[in-house]
Parts: sequence; C-alpha cells; structure tokens
Amino acid sequence: MAVDGQEQRALQYEQTLMYGRYTQELGVYAREEAARLREDGRQRRSISERSPSLKLLEYEKGRCVKCRICAVHCQRFLMSRVGEDWIFLILLGLVMALVSFVMDFCIALLLQAQKWMYGGLDSNVVLQYLAWVTYPVVLISFSAGFTHIVAPQAAGSGIPEMKTILRGVVLKEYLTLKTFVAKVVGLTCALGSGLPLGKEGPFVHIASLCAALLCKFMSFFGGIYENESRNIEMLAAACAVGVGCCFAAPIGGVLFSIEVTSTFFAVRNYWRGFFAATFSAFIFRVLAVWNRDEETITALFKTRFRLDFPFDLQELPAFAVIGIASGFGGALFVYLNRLIVQFMRKQKTINKFLMKKRLLYPALVTLLISTLSFPPGFGQFMAGQLTQKETLVSFFDNRTWAKQGISEDFTFDTHLMAWKHPQANVFIILVIFIVMKFWMSALATTLPVPCGAFMPVFVIGAAFGRLVGESMAAWFPEGINTDGTIYPIVPGGYAVVGAAALSGAVTHTVSTAVIVFELTGQISHILPIMIAVILANAVAQSLQPSIYDSIIRIKKLPYLPELGWGHHEKYNIRVEDIMVRDVRYITLNSTYRDLQDILMIGNLKTVALVESADSMILLGSIERAQLQALLVQQVSRVRRQEVMRERAETERKRMSVASSPSSDDSSQKVNQEVRFQISTEESTFVPVRPISPKPLKPALKRTSVAEKNIEIPTSPHDSSMGLKNLLCARPQTDVMEEDDPDAEDDMTLGEIEEWEEQQLDEQVNFNSCKIDPAPFQLVERTSLHKTHTIFSLLGLDHAYVTSIGRLIGVVSLRELRKAIEGSMTVKGVKVRPPLASFRDSGTSGTSSESEATELHKLWDRHSSLSLPRDQQNHNTDNKTH
Amino acid sequence: MAVDGQEQRALQYEQTLMYGRYTQELGVYAREEAARLREDGRQRRSISERSPSLKLLEYEKGRCVKCRICAVHCQRFLMSRVGEDWIFLILLGLVMALVSFVMDFCIALLLQAQKWMYGGLDSNVVLQYLAWVTYPVVLISFSAGFTHIVAPQAAGSGIPEMKTILRGVVLKEYLTLKTFVAKVVGLTCALGSGLPLGKEGPFVHIASLCAALLCKFMSFFGGIYENESRNIEMLAAACAVGVGCCFAAPIGGVLFSIEVTSTFFAVRNYWRGFFAATFSAFIFRVLAVWNRDEETITALFKTRFRLDFPFDLQELPAFAVIGIASGFGGALFVYLNRLIVQFMRKQKTINKFLMKKRLLYPALVTLLISTLSFPPGFGQFMAGQLTQKETLVSFFDNRTWAKQGISEDFTFDTHLMAWKHPQANVFIILVIFIVMKFWMSALATTLPVPCGAFMPVFVIGAAFGRLVGESMAAWFPEGINTDGTIYPIVPGGYAVVGAAALSGAVTHTVSTAVIVFELTGQISHILPIMIAVILANAVAQSLQPSIYDSIIRIKKLPYLPELGWGHHEKYNIRVEDIMVRDVRYITLNSTYRDLQDILMIGNLKTVALVESADSMILLGSIERAQLQALLVQQVSRVRRQEVMRERAETERKRMSVASSPSSDDSSQKVNQEVRFQISTEESTFVPVRPISPKPLKPALKRTSVAEKNIEIPTSPHDSSMGLKNLLCARPQTDVMEEDDPDAEDDMTLGEIEEWEEQQLDEQVNFNSCKIDPAPFQLVERTSLHKTHTIFSLLGLDHAYVTSIGRLIGVVSLRELRKAIEGSMTVKGVKVRPPLASFRDSGTSGTSSESEATELHKLWDRHSSLSLPRDQQNHNTDNKTH
Repeated sequence: MAVDGQEQRALQYEQTLMYGRYTQELGVYAREEAARLREDGRQRRSISERSPSLKLLEYEKGRCVKCRICAVHCQRFLMSRVGEDWIFLILLGLVMALVSFVMDFCIALLLQAQKWMYGGLDSNVVLQYLAWVTYPVVLISFSAGFTHIVAPQAAGSGIPEMKTILRGVVLKEYLTLKTFVAKVVGLTCALGSGLPLGKEGPFVHIASLCAALLCKFMSFFGGIYENESRNIEMLAAACAVGVGCCFAAPIGGVLFSIEVTSTFFAVRNYWRGFFAATFSAFIFRVLAVWNRDEETITALFKTRFRLDFPFDLQELPAFAVIGIASGFGGALFVYLNRLIVQFMRKQKTINKFLMKKRLLYPALVTLLISTLSFPPGFGQFMAGQLTQKETLVSFFDNRTWAKQGISEDFTFDTHLMAWKHPQANVFIILVIFIVMKFWMSALATTLPVPCGAFMPVFVIGAAFGRLVGESMAAWFPEGINTDGTIYPIVPGGYAVVGAAALSGAVTHTVSTAVIVFELTGQISHILPIMIAVILANAVAQSLQPSIYDSIIRIKKLPYLPELGWGHHEKYNIRVEDIMVRDVRYITLNSTYRDLQDILMIGNLKTVALVESADSMILLGSIERAQLQALLVQQVSRVRRQEVMRERAETERKRMSVASSPSSDDSSQKVNQEVRFQISTEESTFVPVRPISPKPLKPALKRTSVAEKNIEIPTSPHDSSMGLKNLLCARPQTDVMEEDDPDAEDDMTLGEIEEWEEQQLDEQVNFNSCKIDPAPFQLVERTSLHKTHTIFSLLGLDHAYVTSIGRLIGVVSLRELRKAIEGSMTVKGVKVRPPLASFRDSGTSGTSSESEATELHKLWDRHSSLSLPRDQQNHNTDNKTH
Repeated sequence: MAVDGQEQRALQYEQTLMYGRYTQELGVYAREEAARLREDGRQRRSISERSPSLKLLEYEKGRCVKCRICAVHCQRFLMSRVGEDWIFLILLGLVMALVSFVMDFCIALLLQAQKWMYGGLDSNVVLQYLAWVTYPVVLISFSAGFTHIVAPQAAGSGIPEMKTILRGVVLKEYLTLKTFVAKVVGLTCALGSGLPLGKEGPFVHIASLCAALLCKFMSFFGGIYENESRNIEMLAAACAVGVGCCFAAPIGGVLFSIEVTSTFFAVRNYWRGFFAATFSAFIFRVLAVWNRDEETITALFKTRFRLDFPFDLQELPAFAVIGIASGFGGALFVYLNRLIVQFMRKQKTINKFLMKKRLLYPALVTLLISTLSFPPGFGQFMAGQLTQKETLVSFFDNRTWAKQGISEDFTFDTHLMAWKHPQANVFIILVIFIVMKFWMSALATTLPVPCGAFMPVFVIGAAFGRLVGESMAAWFPEGINTDGTIYPIVPGGYAVVGAAALSGAVTHTVSTAVIVFELTGQISHILPIMIAVILANAVAQSLQPSIYDSIIRIKKLPYLPELGWGHHEKYNIRVEDIMVRDVRYITLNSTYRDLQDILMIGNLKTVALVESADSMILLGSIERAQLQALLVQQVSRVRRQEVMRERAETERKRMSVASSPSSDDSSQKVNQEVRFQISTEESTFVPVRPISPKPLKPALKRTSVAEKNIEIPTSPHDSSMGLKNLLCARPQTDVMEEDDPDAEDDMTLGEIEEWEEQQLDEQVNFNSCKIDPAPFQLVERTSLHKTHTIFSLLGLDHAYVTSIGRLIGVVSLRELRKAIEGSMTVKGVKVRPPLASFRDSGTSGTSSESEATELHKLWDRHSSLSLPRDQQNHNTDNKTH
C-alpha cells in the first residue's frame, strides 16, 4: 500500500462513514495476500517441523504406549472425517446459532436496561429525556468507534461485499478475525440502542466470517480446506446460515441468500445451505427452549390467524394495492438512502468536518432519532416506547384496532396500549409511524456501524399493511362475504402481506414471502403474499436497483450489474461493439523493453501473449506479477554478476580462438567447442570492454538475439594472443571466480545503467514464467446477453476476443458494465451502443455482412506465412488422416 | 431416419414399454430439424407474401377506413407488447391452470364412475369384481394404446427428458403438439383408472409442451420467440408452472423444478418461475372457488394441527427415524423400479412376446393391481376403496386412530372407516398398505402410459409416517411432555413428515418440504420436516441415484451425472487423464480426401480445424454438416461441368500461349493475362486429355495445389499451334458453352470416377464454410471438478484441450460421464483413473512435473518455423508497444 498512514485512515473513514468508494486496487491486494500467504506457509512449515520432536518428547514421557497408539488412531480417523462437508456445516451451524442466541440475549438486556432507566426516572421528564437520549448515543458512538478502530470493513450490511466475494473477487480483508470481532460487538451495541436497524445483513456477513475462520482453523487438520472453489461453496452455505439463524427461517434463509448473493446458483450446493441453515435454526430455537423462553419450538413471531377462512377472494385487490404501493415505497427507500449518502459526500465542508470528528455524525443522527421517538414527546404519536420486536408482535395481532379502538381489550396488552392515543385515532398514529420510521430508517442505515436495512423496512411494511387492513376493517365491519357466515377482516394478515411486500421491494427478492411464513408460522396467506411480493418486485425493479446493488454502486465494488427484465436489445449488442480493440500484448519475440513499457503503461492484471505481431495468434495470458518477476530477474544484480562472468569467459575464449577467420558468427558455438578455459592478465578488464558505446538505441528498433551475438566480437582485442594462450593452457577458473565479483563491484553507476539498457534489448525468455495457456475467449459476434451470462457464470474479470485464433480485442468487467448500464438508462428504447458505428467500418466489419467468418484473411495470412515450410509439412500433415 | 417402418415401431415400443433406449442419433435429428425449419420458413414466407394482397382486398371492401387504421394501430401496439415476458407467462399460467382444473375434473368424474359401478353392483360379488377390474384395465389399455399411436414420447414422467432438454440437448420430438395431446389424454385416463400413479412429473412435461407450443404460436407475432436461450429460460419457468398448478404450490413448484431439472440456475430467471407459478396456482384455486368446490382459496390437503404446541422436542428422535427409514425406503423404491425394467428387458422371450402384444403388459399389470385392491377381497386390508386423495386426507387427519380405533368417532367419516377392520388392528392394516403399495407403485410406474412416481411415493410416505405416529401415540397416550399440560401426540403431523421425507428421498430434493407446507397449508412442523427430509436425502443420495437420474440412465439419454456429496478425489483427476488424445482434425491445407476420410470414420458432430499438423494451433471447429456440404459441393455434377468448362478454356488458352517457354508454371496466371479466348476444333476433346493416367495415388501422399497446376500441362498437345491461334483470335465462347454440356454428359462412369478422385486430392477451400472460431478450450491440468462445472454451466457437448494454442486432445460428455461414474463406484477410495498412468509417460507428461507449461516446446517450434520471417516481422512486432 503506497498510501501513507493518514490518507489511508481518511480513506477508510470515508469508506465507513458513507459507504466509501472502493479505492484500493485489487492487483495490489492480490499480491500482498500472496506474499502474506507465502509467509504464513513458511511459518506453518516451521511449526510442523518442530512438532515431531515435541511428539517424541511426549512419547518418551508417556507410560501407557498402547493408549497413545489408540489415541493416535482415533485422531487420524477424526482427521479424515474432519474433511467432510457435513462436519464443517454442523460446526458452522452450531457456532452461528450460539452467536445469534448470545447476541439476541445481550441485545434484549441492553434494551431492557434502557427501559428500566426510562421507567425509573419517570418523576422528572428532563432526566428521563436525558437518560432516553444519552443511552443510545453512547451505544452508537461506541459501536462506531469500536468498528472504526478494530475493522472499518465491518460497518454496514455486508451483503454487498458477500455478493462481490461470491462472484469471485478477492476482498480478503472482509473475512478476518478482526472484522468478526468488530462486527459482533458493533452490531450488538447498535441494535441495543433501539435505533431502527436490522441484523439480517450483518448476520450474513458474520456467518461468512465464521465460515472463513472455521476454514482456516480446519485447514490445520486437513488439506481440503485450502481449495478455493470449495471455500466459495462454503461461503454460499454460510450466507444461508446467516439468514437462517437470524430469523429461525431455514428455507427462507437459503432462498434469500441465493437471491441476494448469487447470479448463477449451483444446485448441488443447495443441500449444504439447507443442511447448515436447518441445523442452525434448530439449535437457535432449542436454545430458547432450554432457556425457558419458550415451551417448544415455534416461530419467532407466531400468528394465530384463522385457518378455515384466511381471507376472502374479494380482498385480493386490497392485497394487490399493498403490493404496488410497497413497490413504489421500496424504490423510494433505496433512492432516499442513496440520496443521503451522496448529499453527505458532496457537501465538502460537511464532509471535511465530519472526517475530523468521526463520531459526531453517528451521535447527531442518534440524538435526532431518539429525541423524536421520546415517548412523552413526539414519540407518543408513533409508539416510541416499543422495541422493534414488540412493534411487530402488535402489528401481527389478530384483533382489529379500529373497531375495538376505544374498547377495554387494549388495556390488557401493554404493547397494544401504545397504539391508543386519547387525541389521535389509530390511522393517524399509523401514518405518522410510517412516515417517521421511513426516513429514520433510511438515515440510520447510513451510519458507520454494523447494521442492516431489512428489519426496519420489514416493520414499516407491516405498519403499512396494518394501515390498509384497519381501513378495510373499518370499511367492511361485517366482512366482505355476503353468503351468510360472517368472516371479519383480519388486519394482521394485511400486516404480514405488507411486511413481505416492502422488504421484497427493497431487496428485490421474492423469498421474503417464505421468510414471512417461517417467521409467523402460518402459510395460510400464501397467495396474497405471493401476489403482493411479485407486484412489489415488478414495480421496484423497474424504478431502482436493490438496496444492495445501490450500496455496491456507491462503494464502487467491482461487480457486474444484472440484466433487467426482458431487455431484448441485449441480444442485439455484440462483443465487437463494446470490446477494447487496442489490446496490450507481448509476442514470443518481445524484448524486456517491450515488457517494461507494457508494465509502465497501465494497471492490467494480465497481459496477452501472442505468437507474433502479424499473426496475432493468441497463445495465452501472463499475470502482471509474473512479468514483473521476469523483468526484475533480468536486470538484477545477481544476474549482472553472472552475465559479466560469462562474458568474461567468452571474451577469454574468443581471444583463444581468434586465429580462426570466421570467429565473428561462430561465437555461440565456441561455448561447446572449447573445452579448456584460459585466463590472461587482461581478464580483469574484460567485462568493461564488450559493452558497445552506443547503447541508447530507440526501443522500437530492438535487436534480435542473433544480432546481439554478432555485436559482441566487435570490441577490439588482440587476436595474436590466441594461439599463444592456447599453447600454455592451464585451468585457472578458481582464481578467476575470486577476481570477478570485485571487478563487477567496481562497475560505475553509468556502466550499470548501460548494462541494463542493453539487457532490456534482449528477447524475453518465457521458460521460467507461468502462462495461463487457455484464457477465456469470445468471438466478436457473441451477444451482450451471452457475454453477461458467461462472465457471471464463470466469475470472469476479462475475456479476450479472438477471430480464428487471432487476438482482436479484449472485454473486461468495466466495458461490460458500461454497456449494460448504458443501454439500461433509456428504457424500452433500443439503444445503439456508442461503438456500434464501428461495426460497419471497423476491422471486423466484413464479417458482419456474411455469416461466414473472415477466413479469407486467414487464408492470406496462411499462404504468405507458411508457404516456405509447405514442403516439409506435407508428410506430417497427412500422418493422422 | 434410415430405420425401416417395423423396426422403428419396435424401437418405439421398447421406448414406451420399458423406458426404451435413446437410440436415434442427435446429429440426424438436428439435420432433419434444420431441414424442416427451413421448409417452414419458406412456407411462412409464402404466406406473408400472399397476405398483402389479401389485406388490400379487405381494404377495398371496407367502408370505415378510420376504424381500420385504428385497429391496425391497436394491433401493432399489442404485437409490441406480446414480446414481453410477463404476457407470455400469464398466458402460460392461465392455460396450465385451465388444463389442470379440467383434467382434475375429468379424473374425479372417472373415479366417481368406477365407484358408482362398484356400488351399484353390490348384490353380486363376481359382477362387482368384474366391474372393479375391467374398468381400470380398459382405461389403462386405452391410455397405453393412445399414447403409443399418437406420440410414444408422451409415456412416462417427462422430468428426465426435461432435465436433458434444459441441459441444452435438442430433443425436439418431445415438444410437439402430438405429444401434448397424447400426454393430456393418456394422463387423464391413467389417473382415472385409480392405479397408484402421479401427475406431477407429467405436468412438468405438459407445462413445457405448453410453453413450447405457445412460443411457436407467439412467434407469428414477434421475432423474439425464436431466440434459443430465451426459450430455454421459458421452459425452465414452465417446469415451475407444472408443479405449481398441479399442487397449487407455487414456491415448492419453483424450488422442486429447479432441483429436479437444473444443475446451475440463473437467479435472474427466478422471478419468471415465481410469477408464472403463482399466477397459475391462483387461477387453479380460483376456478375451484368459482366451481363452488371451496368457499375461498385454501390449501389442497388442509390440515388443522394445533398451532400453540405443534410437537414436543422429545419427539424429534422419532422424526429423525422417519427420515432415515425413508432414505432407505426411497433408495429401495428406485432400485426396485429399475430392477423391474431391467428384468423385463433381459428376459428375451418375455420381451419378444410383449413386443408383439403391446397392450398386454399394461393390461396384466392393471389386472394384478386392481385384483389385489378389490375391496371385498384383499383390498379390505389395505383400504382398497379409497382413492389417492381420500387416502391422503385420512392420513393427515388430526385424530389418533389407535386410541380411538374402536370408538364411534370413526363411523362419522367414511374415509376413516376404511382403516377400521374387525379382525386386524390399525397397525397391521397400515403395514400391509405400505408393503403392497410399495411394489405396486414401483410396478405401475413402469407402464408405458404418462404417469409420475411422486404422488404414489408421497402416499406411501404418509402411510409410513402415520404408522410411526400411531405407534408413538400408543406408546405415550398422555403425550411426552411431563410439565403439566397434556399435549397428546398428533399422528397426522408424523404423516406429513413421512410424506415429505419419502418423496424427498426418491426424487433427491429438499423442496418436498416446501411442497408439503403449501399442500397442507401449515408450516408449524417446519423443523421436523426439514430434519427428516435432509436425513432422508443424505441416506438415499449415498445409496441410489434419484428416480429421474435412474430413468435417464435406463433410457440412455445424453446427460451428465452429478458429482456426489463431497467427492474430493474429483479435485485430483485432471483433464489429461480422461481426454481422448487421438483427435480428428483437419488442417488449413487438408485435401478433400482427408475430409472424406474424417467424415467416414466416426460420427463426430464437429471437427477441429488446426493451422497445420505440426504446429497444431487450434483455429476453430467446423460442424460435420458443413464439411459434408463442402465435400458434396466439390464432387457435384454442377461443379464437374463448371470445372470441365474452365479446363477446356484453360487448355485452349494454353495452346494459344504455348509458344512461351515458361508456360509450365505460369498456367495460373494465364487466366488473368489472356483476355481473348480462342477455340479450336480440338476443344471438344480437351476435357478428357488433362486427366493424368495415374490418378489412384495413395491419399497420404496428396499433391498440393502448386503441384497440380504443374501436372496439367504434361498432357500432350501441339505447342506449335499456339502462335497461329493467337493471331487469328476470335471470341467464340457462345458456341463453346453450347458444346460443353454435351461433352460432359458423354463422360463415362470411369472418367467421372477418375475426375472425382482427382477432385478429392485438391486442397479444401474453407471460404464458404461456417467456422466456429472459438470452440471451448480447456487446459490439460483442469481438474475434473472444474470441467464438470464448466460443462454443466455452459451445457457443453465437448471441449478441446489445448496447451498454449496447440490442440492436444478432446473431452466429450462421454469421457466425462465415464470418469465421474468410474470414480463414483468405489466410494471413499481415491480411484486412479484408467489413463492416469499416461500422466507420467504421455506426451504432456513433462508439464505435470513443473507448473510452468511446456513453453520450451513452443519455443522450439517457434524458432524453427518463424525464423525465416523474423526479419520482416521486426517492425510490425513493435508497432503497438
């Protein structure tokens, strides 16, 4: 990281405070990680080297050898079992259930403490207010501070990052122990403050962290845990566990995590999610039973709607209205959330001020929100004293508030009492609640603490549903059905529908419906819920991205946007319209200077290797780091010394065979022919001489290896010495090797530079370099739709565009993203992409006229290049026919 | 189809009777389909050519022109809307809901008719028996016969075929109108017979048929419906609709269809399934309400378990036992089903006999099953008089049978009465029911009628669950909980768990749990059900393939098996171990003879095109059909005539320029240089002469184009004529063209053969040929795991294995299947694949020693081949650096 300390911290702050941009370069990360891993590996090796001796010591100490052998066998058996998936998944589920339970317990304690303080001070309103407000401010400030100090990556939801990681992008700093600690502690404090924040998103992140740490821990036992693709699969299962043990909703958890994090889902990975999530949810609920909270395993927010006649068919329009309105509401929520972040970012004065006082922003926001929800104050109009959980329970209640509003039923239930107000009726209170919570939630989720947006939105949705339900109940007090039996309207059912619809609209998922079934333990409203959720999704998806995609864009995480609903123009845009034609490449006979130039120019992750600049046949791709290593190796001090030594020897040898008139071009053969090495007194001066006095030739006119070999003998030396030396041949290599290092150290800086310049003109030797021999290739006529599919299926970062083996372009995530977003802005209209005009005039233009590919070009190339070797190929060509 | 009528019918019979092998070749299909489509296109074009005139006629007839213009505008608007997905999905959902409702109605009628007959004849047991037995025999025979005559592909479940189709394999004959009719009629009759058959699988197929037909229908309006990848997505949605409207279970339908048909699932396609399935289930249930069957929309098999205390924690072991036992039961069912099919197939005498009397097998099986379930006979011990639906309703009943077995409660309910027997208690009856239904279902699902196995298995599972539940209720009559309140055990809950577990085990799916929730309308047993389903899956998946995969193997459909649970050895097998090294390829300078040889040898679908036999750089792949077209074109009569004509002209020209001494090698240039064409009296004899007298040279020593050009002038002709002809030049081409055709028709067969032999020795001209310039490539060190992923992700059929551009092998589905199945048989043991020994000695053996790829080879090749053009490349090489 080339960024200095303060700047870095400032960057991190921006990241935490307002979904900071994703600024660090991936390539840098990857290299650092690789270095760290190598270091780790070395340390581990040293540990394992130490352990045998330790074991031996133990053995010698031990008395019952049989016992030990048995133990070792058991250990081995366990080790072999440890590799199996289900053990890992059970461990993951267990740990997460415990984490979830303990965290819930702590949050409940924290909330109770606030209530207790508030209740104890009811004699003095000012003191009460101070206690009510200070408590969350302190908690949120602590949460923000702790998160910032320990691991700034822990702030926010975590689902966007998981989506990016599961796409195959390395964001390792998001999966460390520090982040885990920060997330767990920060989340507990944040939720304990009573602000409208959720735990679903952070739980997905926590579960993933857990899985990653467990993987690292387990890799001490077995080697399977170091497989990359397996870890990705485990992370996907962990996401399901996160949602599953947060809501005790295994099925909904699996589906939600798939919808939210994946683009393509491997069905064979399905059972992992189900297995782990079910186990986790089971343990989570069993813990509650053991803790005597519950009598048996039931749903978290159990409802008791009637089963025989859950709803009337004629109520369906009302449910549809809830769905459509929730769609608009969800889009508005995402928009509002983004607006707040962008506003804070754009106002440079505010931004600068907040950068300095990091905890001020969270404290101010918390102060505002808790002031407004102070129960004796404005909070009385929005049920300010209720926690999120109590609010939900009251919304899902069976009874009708509007009808029984003034009745005494309410007094039995303290939760329901909150909705009763002497001056305002229940509708006004609900409207105020919805409006206030709406912006409060949008604001609170921008805080730099670990928090999710799912639960607040869920509550708002339930409130909206309840509002509609109460209205319906007031409108049709006897129920709608006129066939005889009176089935009164159940506003609680509307609340469930609204909750599912709004949370579905904000997250762009359908599986909120399943989560709702599992949360309430009732599935009787399945059709209204499904209809509302689908309508809400349809509306929201056409207006705004999902909250997670919105955060991804704000944070500028490397991600590929989804193709929208039925964008048929995607089938008409082709890769040739969006690809970058100016591909950086190296050829088999590139020099180190070309290599240097390429490395200097851009921040490419890989460079294409082609056969030659005119054939352009793609042979593979080489990673940037590999090329750097090659370059460094070529001009390194060690090599310089070696080359100098060799050259000195060559020089000496040449002097010895100088009598032969054709020595100029046989200099390479000398190495093999001369068996006796001869040194003279001049040998110490030899290294300096062969360097030609004109090293600064332009890079574009590089010399081939053959030329260079010819160059060396041009240096002046006494050819008459040769025969004399040959006659008095003595092996003096040992003396020489001692002399040489001194000679090189004597090289001046200028000489070194000259030498390096010369080295750069040499042809690259790729032998020691790791080449990816089959980088992903596309054809220029591949449609954007297919390209998107392939990129997201295989998690590609870039792909080369080839035409019958020839490299003609490259497409990276960026181009693809631009193309998709570019054509997405104008909806319904077929957008001609910016580069489409090239299709008619570009290099590959001819191919679009006919389906037959440009084989004639290949033919031309082939006939011009391979004719000289036609004769020799005839026999081999026919060998296999 | 080269198979003659009878044999073909016999094949089809085998296909229908016992999951016949998939014999027809795909290539043949593809070509036939292409031809048919072309034909269709021509017809459609001719229709559209006709229509303008028709429109004009109408216009002239019409009086209110404005009206018409408005109508046209409306029509256009509708057309543009028709392309949108949601219209298609709504139509699909609507149609399928109607189909499902009408079919259910008909099935209910048919079942009622049987009951009515049986009830009306209760005076005479023999007559009663005859009526009871004849009715299903007639129905099943009709179903089998109808299916066989109209569309034999309609027999069976259809899910295996859909799985294959969704993988990208073309099985077009499974998606025709005929198949649709056969499936709907056949299924109605089969289910109306009362045999233990299901409708889920066939409904998946029917929905897909519906979608395919709708696509065809809609393609008359818009062009989008001809997009291949879109249709695949629509088919996936259709599968969800099929399950969804069969059980009124939209969520379970989507999940089940994903699990059963997909390997990788595009999440962006998710909403399509949910949308269509929800709409379909909604309409399906609304139809029931409108038909006054139900008061409002509720679940199909509504249960009324208590909500407050659904089950005790201590009951969980019993649920786990149900899960594990169901796992074994499910595996046994799949095994039994396969055993029956294989037994019938192996017994050649039975096979032959049944081939002749096609309807005998179904009739005999039906006779056996209905005889055994005859209520006054053995049927009294297995509730023979109940239909599947009634059986399920009684299993899901709230009341305990064992306790209340002798009480009068039973008499109120006729369904429950069936389980009461004066001699046998309820446990014995349940055991008999389970055992009998088990083999009956396994047998019935082998019948050549449209039928599924899901529902029978579901019923058996429910019976088993009920058995366990009743046992528990008898064991703990007061409930397990000892804390005070008595919560009696609910055996109906056990039945639900058992049903989900056994159907999950047979189909290898987890989503049966969701289907069960939606079917019963209660989700309170979520944790027991999830645990049982997961355990059942774990057991069944480690013993047997799923019923659908089993059928795929029996039918030998082209499919890729799944990787099992945690088979880590997959990471250690590499492509180089399984690939075929002897790749058939053609080079840029192959002759037509090579092409012929390749086409003769095997039934490859595509052939690799490499640069040359020693460079082996892969340039692309060409389809077999394309190559055939090239070959046919080369030796076609038309071309023969053309060539003859040209040659005659050349001959004449040569004679005219024969005076020049270097005419031997400038024969090609002549064409461009000579502008005046000359004919002599000898021109008619020319065509015969140039053919060299030694045409049967071995194919391996083919001549290049250059050589051939030199060959022609060796024919004897008077060179002295040249100058004279040139002097008296007259254009006589018109005369010549009239002469030539006659001349060629005069060619003897021998001459034609000779000419063809010569043609085959020419170099192939690929200009008119469509080349896939980027066939999928793998590297030799790609793991089997990754290869499997890529193959199933992209629906590949084969992939070339390349090493830095060089083609070194090919992997097709078959090799992959073998490798996976080969290493799957020995479980837990790391199998060294058959070709692994080659890794050490094979051609690519060196590369496995070091991670660096065999670049040195490339280097050798490069230096030996490209040195001659090094000088000319220097400038171009550096151009872009």
